[in-house]
Amino acid sequence: MRLPLLFFLLFLLVILPSFLYLNYSVIQTREEAITLIPEIDNNVVKGPVVMPQLKNSTIKAELGQSSWKLLHTMMARFPERPTQDEKEALRSFIYLFSRLYPCGECAAEFQAILAKHPPQVSSREAASQWACAVHNIVNQRLQKEIFDCGKIAEKYKCGC
Amino acid sequence: MRLPLLFFLLFLLVILPSFLYLNYSVIQTREEAITLIPEIDNNVVKGPVVMPQLKNSTIKAELGQSSWKLLHTMMARFPERPTQDEKEALRSFIYLFSRLYPCGECAAEFQAILAKHPPQVSSREAASQWACAVHNIVNQRLQKEIFDCGKIAEKYKCGC
Repeated sequence: MRLPLLFFLLFLLVILPSFLYLNYSVIQTREEAITLIPEIDNNVVKGPVVMPQLKNSTIKAELGQSSWKLLHTMMARFPERPTQDEKEALRSFIYLFSRLYPCGECAAEFQAILAKHPPQVSSREAASQWACAVHNIVNQRLQKEIFDCGKIAEKYKCGC
Repeated sequence: MRLPLLFFLLFLLVILPSFLYLNYSVIQTREEAITLIPEIDNNVVKGPVVMPQLKNSTIKAELGQSSWKLLHTMMARFPERPTQDEKEALRSFIYLFSRLYPCGECAAEFQAILAKHPPQVSSREAASQWACAVHNIVNQRLQKEIFDCGKIAEKYKCGC
Protein backbone atom coordinates (compact mmCIF):
# COMPACT_ATOMS: atom_id res chain seq x y z
CA MET A 1 0.00 0.00 0.00
CA ARG A 2 3.02 2.30 0.01
CA LEU A 3 3.04 2.66 -3.76
CA PRO A 4 -0.21 4.64 -4.13
CA LEU A 5 0.88 6.98 -1.36
CA LEU A 6 4.16 7.54 -3.13
CA PHE A 7 2.39 8.23 -6.40
CA PHE A 8 0.01 10.59 -4.69
CA LEU A 9 2.85 12.54 -3.09
CA LEU A 10 4.78 12.60 -6.35
CA PHE A 11 1.70 13.96 -8.08
CA LEU A 12 1.01 16.55 -5.41
CA LEU A 13 4.54 17.90 -5.16
CA VAL A 14 6.00 17.51 -8.64
CA ILE A 15 3.59 16.66 -11.45
CA LEU A 16 0.67 18.94 -10.57
CA PRO A 17 2.81 22.07 -10.04
CA SER A 18 4.77 21.45 -13.27
CA PHE A 19 1.60 20.82 -15.19
CA LEU A 20 -0.06 23.95 -13.86
CA TYR A 21 3.03 25.98 -14.59
CA LEU A 22 3.37 24.67 -18.14
CA ASN A 23 -0.28 25.24 -18.77
CA TYR A 24 0.00 28.78 -17.45
CA SER A 25 2.97 29.49 -19.74
CA VAL A 26 1.08 28.25 -22.77
CA ILE A 27 -1.83 30.54 -21.99
CA GLN A 28 0.54 33.44 -21.35
CA THR A 29 2.22 32.93 -24.72
CA ARG A 30 -1.12 32.73 -26.44
CA GLU A 31 -2.31 35.90 -24.80
CA GLU A 32 0.84 37.66 -25.91
CA ALA A 33 0.27 36.31 -29.41
CA ILE A 34 -3.25 37.70 -29.40
CA THR A 35 -2.19 41.15 -28.26
CA LEU A 36 0.79 41.18 -30.63
CA ILE A 37 -1.19 40.39 -33.78
CA PRO A 38 -3.47 43.34 -33.89
CA GLU A 39 -3.73 46.39 -33.02
CA ILE A 40 -6.11 45.86 -35.88
CA ASP A 41 -8.94 43.39 -36.22
CA ASN A 42 -11.95 43.09 -38.43
CA ASN A 43 -14.08 45.18 -36.08
CA VAL A 44 -11.65 48.04 -36.55
CA VAL A 45 -11.55 47.64 -40.33
CA LYS A 46 -15.30 47.35 -40.73
CA GLY A 47 -16.45 49.64 -37.92
CA PRO A 48 -18.78 52.64 -38.17
CA VAL A 49 -18.11 56.12 -39.53
CA VAL A 50 -15.75 58.10 -37.28
CA MET A 51 -16.16 61.61 -38.70
CA PRO A 52 -18.75 64.32 -38.08
CA GLN A 53 -20.98 65.93 -40.73
CA LEU A 54 -19.27 68.31 -43.14
CA LYS A 55 -21.74 70.99 -44.02
CA ASN A 56 -19.46 73.29 -46.01
CA SER A 57 -20.22 72.27 -49.61
CA THR A 58 -17.08 73.88 -51.07
CA ILE A 59 -14.76 71.90 -48.80
CA LYS A 60 -16.91 68.84 -49.46
CA ALA A 61 -16.55 69.13 -53.25
CA GLU A 62 -12.80 69.80 -53.11
CA LEU A 63 -12.29 66.88 -50.77
CA GLY A 64 -14.31 64.62 -53.04
CA GLN A 65 -12.25 65.58 -56.07
CA SER A 66 -8.95 65.00 -54.25
CA SER A 67 -10.05 61.67 -52.87
CA TRP A 68 -11.41 60.22 -56.10
CA LYS A 69 -8.16 61.23 -57.80
CA LEU A 70 -6.16 59.37 -55.16
CA LEU A 71 -8.46 56.34 -55.27
CA HIS A 72 -8.59 56.00 -59.08
CA THR A 73 -4.82 56.47 -59.40
CA MET A 74 -4.30 53.82 -56.71
CA MET A 75 -6.44 51.35 -58.66
CA ALA A 76 -4.76 52.20 -61.98
CA ARG A 77 -1.39 51.33 -60.45
CA PHE A 78 -2.45 48.36 -58.32
CA PRO A 79 -0.63 45.15 -59.43
CA GLU A 80 -2.21 43.36 -62.37
CA ARG A 81 -1.79 40.10 -60.44
CA PRO A 82 -1.74 41.09 -56.75
CA THR A 83 -0.65 38.69 -54.00
CA GLN A 84 -3.11 37.69 -51.27
CA ASP A 85 -1.37 40.17 -48.96
CA GLU A 86 -1.74 43.01 -51.46
CA LYS A 87 -5.41 42.19 -51.96
CA GLU A 88 -6.03 42.26 -48.21
CA ALA A 89 -4.14 45.53 -47.89
CA LEU A 90 -6.32 47.21 -50.52
CA ARG A 91 -9.55 45.74 -49.17
CA SER A 92 -8.75 46.91 -45.62
CA PHE A 93 -7.64 50.31 -46.86
CA ILE A 94 -10.97 50.82 -48.64
CA TYR A 95 -12.99 49.85 -45.56
CA LEU A 96 -10.88 52.07 -43.29
CA PHE A 97 -11.27 54.87 -45.84
CA SER A 98 -15.05 54.47 -45.49
CA ARG A 99 -14.69 54.98 -41.72
CA LEU A 100 -12.23 57.87 -41.72
CA TYR A 101 -13.23 59.89 -44.76
CA PRO A 102 -13.46 63.37 -43.27
CA CYS A 103 -17.05 64.02 -44.35
CA GLY A 104 -19.27 61.93 -42.12
CA GLU A 105 -22.38 61.90 -44.32
CA CYS A 106 -20.28 61.03 -47.41
CA ALA A 107 -18.58 58.23 -45.46
CA ALA A 108 -21.99 56.86 -44.46
CA GLU A 109 -23.08 56.86 -48.12
CA PHE A 110 -19.82 55.12 -49.08
CA GLN A 111 -20.40 52.46 -46.39
CA ALA A 112 -23.93 51.82 -47.72
CA ILE A 113 -22.50 51.43 -51.25
CA LEU A 114 -19.75 49.09 -49.95
CA ALA A 115 -22.39 46.90 -48.32
CA LYS A 116 -23.98 46.34 -51.74
CA HIS A 117 -20.79 46.47 -53.80
CA PRO A 118 -17.89 45.02 -51.79
CA PRO A 119 -14.41 46.05 -52.99
CA GLN A 120 -13.07 44.08 -55.95
CA VAL A 121 -9.39 43.54 -55.31
CA SER A 122 -8.49 40.47 -57.37
CA SER A 123 -6.64 42.46 -60.06
CA ARG A 124 -5.88 45.98 -61.29
CA GLU A 125 -8.67 45.71 -63.84
CA ALA A 126 -11.21 44.50 -61.25
CA ALA A 127 -10.24 47.21 -58.76
CA SER A 128 -10.32 49.99 -61.37
CA GLN A 129 -13.71 48.92 -62.70
CA TRP A 130 -15.09 48.60 -59.18
CA ALA A 131 -13.93 52.13 -58.25
CA CYS A 132 -15.40 53.50 -61.49
CA ALA A 133 -18.75 51.79 -60.86
CA VAL A 134 -18.86 53.07 -57.27
CA HIS A 135 -17.96 56.60 -58.38
CA ASN A 136 -20.78 56.47 -60.93
CA ILE A 137 -23.28 55.49 -58.21
CA VAL A 138 -22.32 58.72 -56.43
CA ASN A 139 -22.32 60.67 -59.71
CA GLN A 140 -25.83 59.47 -60.41
CA ARG A 141 -27.12 60.60 -57.02
CA LEU A 142 -25.44 64.00 -57.49
CA GLN A 143 -26.92 64.16 -61.02
CA LYS A 144 -23.42 64.47 -62.41
CA GLU A 145 -22.29 63.01 -65.71
CA ILE A 146 -21.80 59.24 -65.72
CA PHE A 147 -18.21 58.33 -66.56
CA ASP A 148 -17.50 55.74 -69.27
CA CYS A 149 -15.68 53.01 -67.33
CA GLY A 150 -14.17 51.72 -70.56
CA LYS A 151 -12.01 54.86 -70.53
CA ILE A 152 -10.91 54.73 -66.88
CA ALA A 153 -7.50 53.21 -67.74
CA GLU A 154 -6.87 56.08 -70.18
CA LYS A 155 -7.85 58.75 -67.66
CA TYR A 156 -5.79 57.47 -64.73
CA LYS A 157 -2.69 56.10 -66.42
CA CYS A 158 -0.68 53.68 -64.37
CA GLY A 159 2.57 55.05 -65.85
CA CYS A 160 4.36 51.80 -65.16
CA MET B 1 -3.88 3.92 4.16
CA ARG B 2 -7.03 3.69 2.04
CA LEU B 3 -7.40 7.45 1.76
CA PRO B 4 -4.33 8.15 -0.42
CA LEU B 5 -5.29 5.33 -2.75
CA LEU B 6 -8.77 6.77 -3.04
CA PHE B 7 -7.35 10.21 -3.81
CA PHE B 8 -5.02 8.76 -6.36
CA LEU B 9 -7.81 6.93 -8.14
CA LEU B 10 -10.02 10.00 -7.98
CA PHE B 11 -7.26 12.03 -9.53
CA LEU B 12 -6.51 9.46 -12.22
CA LEU B 13 -10.09 8.89 -13.32
CA VAL B 14 -11.84 12.21 -12.74
CA ILE B 15 -9.67 15.22 -12.03
CA LEU B 16 -6.88 14.66 -14.56
CA PRO B 17 -9.18 13.94 -17.53
CA SER B 18 -11.40 16.93 -16.70
CA PHE B 19 -8.39 19.15 -16.32
CA LEU B 20 -6.89 18.02 -19.61
CA TYR B 21 -10.22 18.45 -21.35
CA LEU B 22 -10.81 21.94 -19.95
CA ASN B 23 -7.32 22.97 -20.84
CA TYR B 24 -7.82 21.66 -24.38
CA SER B 25 -11.07 23.61 -24.74
CA VAL B 26 -9.40 26.82 -23.62
CA ILE B 27 -6.67 26.38 -26.19
CA GLN B 28 -9.24 25.54 -28.88
CA THR B 29 -11.22 28.68 -28.11
CA ARG B 30 -8.09 30.78 -28.21
CA GLU B 31 -7.09 29.33 -31.54
CA GLU B 32 -10.52 30.08 -32.93
CA ALA B 33 -10.18 33.59 -31.59
CA ILE B 34 -6.88 33.99 -33.38
CA THR B 35 -8.16 32.73 -36.72
CA LEU B 36 -11.45 34.64 -36.45
CA ILE B 37 -9.85 38.04 -35.92
CA PRO B 38 -8.30 38.73 -39.31
CA GLU B 39 -8.39 38.52 -42.64
CA ILE B 40 -6.08 41.36 -41.80
CA ASP B 41 -3.13 41.18 -39.47
CA ASN B 42 -0.19 43.36 -38.66
CA ASN B 43 1.82 41.92 -41.55
CA VAL B 44 -0.78 43.29 -43.94
CA VAL B 45 -0.97 46.66 -42.20
CA LYS B 46 2.77 47.09 -41.90
CA GLY B 47 3.91 45.35 -45.08
CA PRO B 48 6.10 46.76 -47.84
CA VAL B 49 5.24 49.27 -50.57
CA VAL B 50 2.87 47.80 -53.18
CA MET B 51 3.12 50.41 -55.91
CA PRO B 52 5.63 50.93 -58.74
CA GLN B 53 7.71 54.07 -59.32
CA LEU B 54 5.83 57.11 -60.61
CA LYS B 55 8.17 59.01 -62.87
CA ASN B 56 5.77 61.63 -64.22
CA SER B 57 6.48 64.61 -61.96
CA THR B 58 3.25 66.45 -62.82
CA ILE B 59 1.05 63.52 -61.77
CA LYS B 60 3.30 63.09 -58.73
CA ALA B 61 2.86 66.70 -57.60
CA GLU B 62 -0.93 66.69 -58.17
CA LEU B 63 -1.27 63.42 -56.32
CA GLY B 64 0.79 64.77 -53.42
CA GLN B 65 -1.38 67.88 -53.15
CA SER B 66 -4.62 65.85 -53.21
CA SER B 67 -3.36 63.39 -50.64
CA TRP B 68 -2.02 65.91 -48.14
CA LYS B 69 -5.35 67.74 -48.37
CA LEU B 70 -7.22 64.54 -47.55
CA LEU B 71 -4.81 63.63 -44.75
CA HIS B 72 -4.77 67.03 -43.03
CA THR B 73 -8.56 67.36 -43.27
CA MET B 74 -8.90 63.89 -41.77
CA MET B 75 -6.71 64.88 -38.83
CA ALA B 76 -8.52 68.21 -38.35
CA ARG B 77 -11.81 66.35 -38.01
CA PHE B 78 -10.59 63.32 -36.05
CA PRO B 79 -12.32 63.12 -32.62
CA GLU B 80 -10.75 65.26 -29.92
CA ARG B 81 -10.98 62.26 -27.59
CA PRO B 82 -10.99 59.17 -29.84
CA THR B 83 -11.92 55.71 -28.59
CA GLN B 84 -9.35 52.91 -28.70
CA ASP B 85 -11.10 51.59 -31.81
CA GLU B 86 -10.92 54.96 -33.55
CA LYS B 87 -7.23 55.28 -32.70
CA GLU B 88 -6.50 51.85 -34.16
CA ALA B 89 -8.51 52.64 -37.27
CA LEU B 90 -6.48 55.79 -37.93
CA ARG B 91 -3.15 54.13 -37.14
CA SER B 92 -3.89 51.22 -39.51
CA PHE B 93 -5.17 53.55 -42.19
CA ILE B 94 -1.91 55.52 -42.10
CA TYR B 95 0.23 52.38 -42.39
CA LEU B 96 -1.91 51.02 -45.23
CA PHE B 97 -1.69 54.41 -46.91
CA SER B 98 2.11 54.08 -46.77
CA ARG B 99 1.81 50.75 -48.62
CA LEU B 100 -0.75 51.71 -51.23
CA TYR B 101 0.10 55.32 -52.02
CA PRO B 102 0.24 55.20 -55.82
CA CYS B 103 3.78 56.58 -56.13
CA GLY B 104 6.14 53.82 -55.04
CA GLU B 105 9.17 55.98 -54.31
CA CYS B 106 7.03 58.47 -52.32
CA ALA B 107 5.50 55.57 -50.38
CA ALA B 108 8.99 54.26 -49.55
CA GLU B 109 9.98 57.69 -48.23
CA PHE B 110 6.77 57.84 -46.18
CA GLN B 111 7.51 54.40 -44.71
CA ALA B 112 11.03 55.52 -43.71
CA ILE B 113 9.53 58.60 -42.01
CA LEU B 114 6.91 56.45 -40.25
CA ALA B 115 9.66 54.23 -38.87
CA LYS B 116 11.20 57.25 -37.15
CA HIS B 117 7.94 59.10 -36.43
CA PRO B 118 5.15 56.60 -35.74
CA PRO B 119 1.60 57.97 -36.17
CA GLN B 120 0.27 59.94 -33.20
CA VAL B 121 -3.38 59.02 -32.85
CA SER B 122 -4.24 59.78 -29.22
CA SER B 123 -6.23 62.94 -30.03
CA ARG B 124 -7.16 65.34 -32.85
CA GLU B 125 -4.41 67.71 -31.72
CA ALA B 126 -1.76 64.97 -31.60
CA ALA B 127 -2.77 63.59 -35.02
CA SER B 128 -2.86 67.05 -36.64
CA GLN B 129 0.53 68.02 -35.25
CA TRP B 130 2.02 64.68 -36.27
CA ALA B 131 0.76 65.06 -39.88
CA CYS B 132 2.07 68.62 -40.01
CA ALA B 133 5.52 67.54 -38.73
CA VAL B 134 5.67 64.67 -41.23
CA HIS B 135 4.60 66.96 -44.09
CA ASN B 136 7.36 69.38 -43.11
CA ILE B 137 9.97 66.61 -43.26
CA VAL B 138 8.93 66.08 -46.89
CA ASN B 139 8.77 69.86 -47.52
CA GLN B 140 12.31 70.20 -46.23
CA ARG B 141 13.64 67.51 -48.56
CA LEU B 142 11.83 69.13 -51.50
CA GLN B 143 13.21 72.51 -50.40
CA LYS B 144 9.66 73.79 -50.09
CA GLU B 145 8.48 76.29 -47.51
CA ILE B 146 8.15 74.90 -43.96
CA PHE B 147 4.57 75.21 -42.72
CA ASP B 148 3.89 76.78 -39.29
CA CYS B 149 2.23 73.90 -37.42
CA GLY B 150 0.70 76.38 -34.99
CA LYS B 151 -1.59 77.40 -37.88
CA ILE B 152 -2.60 73.93 -39.07
CA ALA B 153 -5.96 74.03 -37.24
CA GLU B 154 -6.76 77.33 -38.99
CA LYS B 155 -5.81 76.02 -42.44
CA TYR B 156 -7.75 72.73 -42.23
CA LYS B 157 -10.85 73.67 -40.27
CA CYS B 158 -12.73 70.80 -38.73
CA GLY B 159 -16.06 72.56 -39.39
CA CYS B 160 -17.72 70.66 -36.59
